[in-house]
Amino acid sequence: MQNVVNRRWLLASYPKGLPSPQNWTMDAQPVPDPGPGQILVKAKWLSVDPYMRGRMSPSANYTKGVGLGEVMQGGGVGEIVASNHPAWKTGDIAESMSFGWQEWSVLTPDIFGPAGVNKIDPKLAPIESSLSWLGMPGVTAYFGLLDVGRPRPGETVVVSAASGAVGQLVGQIAKLAGCRAVAIAGGDHKLQWCREIGFDAAINYKKVADLAAAVKQACPQGVDVFFDNTAGPIHDAVMKNLSIGARAVICGRVALADRFGEPDIGERFMGQLIVSRASVHGFLVFDWWHKRNEALQRLVAWQQAGKIHFKEDVLNGIERMPEAFLRLLQGKNFGKQIVKIS
Amino acid sequence: MQNVVNRRWLLASYPKGLPSPQNWTMDAQPVPDPGPGQILVKAKWLSVDPYMRGRMSPSANYTKGVGLGEVMQGGGVGEIVASNHPAWKTGDIAESMSFGWQEWSVLTPDIFGPAGVNKIDPKLAPIESSLSWLGMPGVTAYFGLLDVGRPRPGETVVVSAASGAVGQLVGQIAKLAGCRAVAIAGGDHKLQWCREIGFDAAINYKKVADLAAAVKQACPQGVDVFFDNTAGPIHDAVMKNLSIGARAVICGRVALADRFGEPDIGERFMGQLIVSRASVHGFLVFDWWHKRNEALQRLVAWQQAGKIHFKEDVLNGIERMPEAFLRLLQGKNFGKQIVKIS
Repeated sequence: MQNVVNRRWLLASYPKGLPSPQNWTMDAQPVPDPGPGQILVKAKWLSVDPYMRGRMSPSANYTKGVGLGEVMQGGGVGEIVASNHPAWKTGDIAESMSFGWQEWSVLTPDIFGPAGVNKIDPKLAPIESSLSWLGMPGVTAYFGLLDVGRPRPGETVVVSAASGAVGQLVGQIAKLAGCRAVAIAGGDHKLQWCREIGFDAAINYKKVADLAAAVKQACPQGVDVFFDNTAGPIHDAVMKNLSIGARAVICGRVALADRFGEPDIGERFMGQLIVSRASVHGFLVFDWWHKRNEALQRLVAWQQAGKIHFKEDVLNGIERMPEAFLRLLQGKNFGKQIVKIS
Repeated sequence: MQNVVNRRWLLASYPKGLPSPQNWTMDAQPVPDPGPGQILVKAKWLSVDPYMRGRMSPSANYTKGVGLGEVMQGGGVGEIVASNHPAWKTGDIAESMSFGWQEWSVLTPDIFGPAGVNKIDPKLAPIESSLSWLGMPGVTAYFGLLDVGRPRPGETVVVSAASGAVGQLVGQIAKLAGCRAVAIAGGDHKLQWCREIGFDAAINYKKVADLAAAVKQACPQGVDVFFDNTAGPIHDAVMKNLSIGARAVICGRVALADRFGEPDIGERFMGQLIVSRASVHGFLVFDWWHKRNEALQRLVAWQQAGKIHFKEDVLNGIERMPEAFLRLLQGKNFGKQIVKIS
């Protein structure tokens, strides 16, 4: 496709702390041709997710970072325009975390695991759902809450970044599991949405003087499951309210985005953990990737039954990828941040 | 027993930070008579344990503290001198965590749970063992390692305060479970003992310049189970070396004894927990109290088979109870600290 241009965002430099638009540069290259066993996909939607901050780093994390001059990593969904793979044909919809921040992507369907390609049924849900509630964030919420947090009916589940991609699902799954769900977010419009989708209580962390006291008031029996997407002061406030036997699920640390790579200094809660016989669990969704269909099938069933609702925050155009990502890191998005490409 | 004197240590004041001998006063009262269903026991041995620091506090912990002017709480073992209970007779040996820092104690055998009384078979082991490897510390090591830490054969288990009452057992049980055991303690004589009883490696935290690097060197495959009795800088060094899927068992925080009640400020390891998919578990042995006989039976069998060894550190006389306890909090003991009373 030498006569068609593929605009791409390349990583230009590694940020210290919060990234800035200058950390990427856009180039334009001819659209590549797929090799044997590969497919060429034109992006319809691209995703931005907090994990991408970890990829903007040369140091070892759970997976290696993006090299300077390479296309920025990220998931996307689009339409197949050319296929050299017998199981995939032109017009099929393909979703992959290997898409990259670009308008076109050559993908290899036979890769197993998170880097692979998933065929999307556009009749099930709008295809961009495969980047949100019917994709990685949905699988994260499902297994993180149910397998790691292990909520029991009647327990209280507190969720930070509760109106975000993962948080809004955690709250709704907690309700389906028979729990009381408490949202923490910044912004009354976000909390209003959380209440509409079923959270029993909602705390605006930007408006309360004493967040730990606010959590205590919202959770008079203590916090049984804490699904933490933020770390930072919200983490601290909830940890002070753990019930006996509580489980804290550490899913993300978006509140520390401006201090990425620095030691996180603050209060530790080892004494609290002993007294409460509580536990803290780090969590990566990719450990559950081999059974993601379990989550996706249940999420679809719940959504079709009207039991889960989901809010997306859409920007338009490949040009806005850095802006979309920075909005996310700063909590300026309202719902899952995605970008419509074509 | 109006003509016999019972010397008792009463709590005189609540310490800030590390206790001092002035926090207790000794009095002498006539030995009380047992009421209906009770027994009178003459102490042979008393125990000092790190948990006692928590009892020297008016604030709520997992159980209430000792009131000012009350007998200091603690476990002991002794001989029954008078009995008003049909199942207990004069000459029997009774162990109880309700003993108190005193020469004589009136106990109520029918209390269920940790405050109850256990009949000790002096043919199984020296009776003071019921305060150490064949008692609460043994049960702590057994369930804390096996049920909370869940070691698998071939894994690496790191133990802080490794020559202490709990630590030396954790290391030996880890070996019986097919693991590699690494000791951390302060003092070459302590580490020599750890090696003698089977630890594969031993680190003197007082002598290494970079403790995290020393842990890494001793655990080239990472730390799979961290049994933490100390908190503080040792905790930090081990947490930086967790393997994928590691479990940290938070049993005690003796290194923070001089900062008791203050917030524990330092590095948090949430990012580490995510990357390692690791978990941190607060732990109280009393949650396993109903099945302590499982632990005790196996500990006896192992000891009789020559598979576990145990070092005690003995002081003599009721007068030395505060000294014994302060030695323990400062790591000056070598092995389980107990006090011979009569």
